[in-house]
Amino acid sequence: MEKKDILVTGDRPTGNLHLGHYVGTLENRIKLQDQFDCFFLIADLHMLTTHNERVDELRLNIESLVIDWISVGLDPNNSCFYLQSLVPEINELTLLLSMICSVPRVQRIPTLKEKTSQLGDNENYSVGLLSYPILMSADILIFNAKKVPVGEDQLSHVELARELSRRFNSLYGYTITEPEPLISEFSRLVGIDGKSKMSKSLNNCIYLIDNQEEVNKKVMKMFTDPNRTSPDIPGKVEGNPVFIYHDIFNQNKAEVDEFKERYKKGKIGDVEVKKSLAKNINVFLEPIRERRSQLKKNRSEIFDIIIDGSTRARKLAKENIDRIKDSMKINFKEI
Amino acid sequence: MEKKDILVTGDRPTGNLHLGHYVGTLENRIKLQDQFDCFFLIADLHMLTTHNERVDELRLNIESLVIDWISVGLDPNNSCFYLQSLVPEINELTLLLSMICSVPRVQRIPTLKEKTSQLGDNENYSVGLLSYPILMSADILIFNAKKVPVGEDQLSHVELARELSRRFNSLYGYTITEPEPLISEFSRLVGIDGKSKMSKSLNNCIYLIDNQEEVNKKVMKMFTDPNRTSPDIPGKVEGNPVFIYHDIFNQNKAEVDEFKERYKKGKIGDVEVKKSLAKNINVFLEPIRERRSQLKKNRSEIFDIIIDGSTRARKLAKENIDRIKDSMKINFKEI
Repeated sequence: MEKKDILVTGDRPTGNLHLGHYVGTLENRIKLQDQFDCFFLIADLHMLTTHNERVDELRLNIESLVIDWISVGLDPNNSCFYLQSLVPEINELTLLLSMICSVPRVQRIPTLKEKTSQLGDNENYSVGLLSYPILMSADILIFNAKKVPVGEDQLSHVELARELSRRFNSLYGYTITEPEPLISEFSRLVGIDGKSKMSKSLNNCIYLIDNQEEVNKKVMKMFTDPNRTSPDIPGKVEGNPVFIYHDIFNQNKAEVDEFKERYKKGKIGDVEVKKSLAKNINVFLEPIRERRSQLKKNRSEIFDIIIDGSTRARKLAKENIDRIKDSMKINFKEI
Repeated sequence: MEKKDILVTGDRPTGNLHLGHYVGTLENRIKLQDQFDCFFLIADLHMLTTHNERVDELRLNIESLVIDWISVGLDPNNSCFYLQSLVPEINELTLLLSMICSVPRVQRIPTLKEKTSQLGDNENYSVGLLSYPILMSADILIFNAKKVPVGEDQLSHVELARELSRRFNSLYGYTITEPEPLISEFSRLVGIDGKSKMSKSLNNCIYLIDNQEEVNKKVMKMFTDPNRTSPDIPGKVEGNPVFIYHDIFNQNKAEVDEFKERYKKGKIGDVEVKKSLAKNINVFLEPIRERRSQLKKNRSEIFDIIIDGSTRARKLAKENIDRIKDSMKINFKEI
């Protein structure tokens, strides 16, 4: 069997995943899991960089993240689901990499700037937050990952990992694989309020966990064309969230085209378009819900999956940190 | 048997120890090892914060550090000699503490400022260097140390460790012992050039490893009273390195007093005073040299000591990191 390239990607366990995650990353991962040897990271340590006071929810969030992953179609028998804090070699590598990464270098990373400015006080953030891009590099480099799927906004993280691998290799001899970004067709799904992207903090999400009734309700109050105060006014289709969602979730493309034509001419009400959309989102979510309810029946299995994946991931991480410390001549296990 | 308080202290393995180390810290540790349950840290990771390119020397420096410790009288059967990189729980705790320690907080530490300004470029230092005070806190807190011997200039490190233990305990419940500084009568030994303190980088040291001839040579060229161009000129005793050293290393106090009197009156030559000093330093170093040559005969024993101490240290570190992660509810080993 041909050995596949290693790919690393993952999520912070901060709550339930929504349709925006599905469109943005999960759908892509479902394809990638057959092409690559995938390591899916449950990034609990990253959660601490901004939410160190919210650890109470962590266990539940980890469980729900894994349930979301499996229910959309990620396969733990095919890929490795692992919990970051169960692979302490990541911490070891983070510390070693922090020695060869300058403070201004991480401060230049746009997403760090964004995070620190969200905190209000631009200067007074934690060393853990400052170091998170290095932790992220370690997440990738510890497995000698070859590919990291990223959207444009995450490219700077892979750039840092590439830079640190090169710097390490030039200092201590070639040891760490230089990863490549896998720029995928990521889409940002607009929120149901029509404002920017779907995001938990904006309260504009349809969650994978939402039941039929919740989906119906949320779709019914979706933002459409604000100028269209009655069904006989010609409406705008482009950029209209209801039609963006139809394009994604309604498999009957002829119907979608027909809706669009009638909408532009003022010959269909929002309610009809929305009812069809809600139905189609529910059709999409139904098998996910079914798998979820199966998984929920045997919750200990979820944790078995995490332990199993983390154990496999750790085995590889141990081999690699050993080689890394060997090349630095600071591997004193056998002195 | 009464359980003793835990004490943590240590050195970076950057080269041979000298008389300045003996007077400044080693002599004190020899007393402390009976009063406390001592953990003596061989801080190889700290070495990387400023010398990440010099790892080739590391193994040799670790060996010579431990030989220096034992030959002056530190007892590995009584205390725990451990290598920082062999206790990866220290890395884990460093990462966790970095989440609750702000960047400006560490930047305020005077010794960090000193180190970064020594690097020339005040801004462009590594994240590893920025984080070293947190690593140092983890060195202490991982063992629930009660005491940390410090000189005035190191007090800010213990202050940070105290602050982080309090912050951790208030966030996650009482888990980590708040350490106390043990302010000892540290003395800074002046260098043989009479300029500030004895320091490898100033090339003004008498090393514990120096042989009789080297000691003689170094003492003969020691800085004394520069105004005294011939033996009959009355000389200055206060602040004169030769007399500072006599006070420490010459056990014959009557002789020292006599030398001082004659020196002040211009009735003794520098050569006579120096010959006596060299003899007395050699008397002091002789048993150290003897132990060293014994130790050198069985070098594998040195590494056995390090492995044994690190294994013992790690056992305690594992217990403590488990309790720490339990209190944070991020200990997923048994999920």
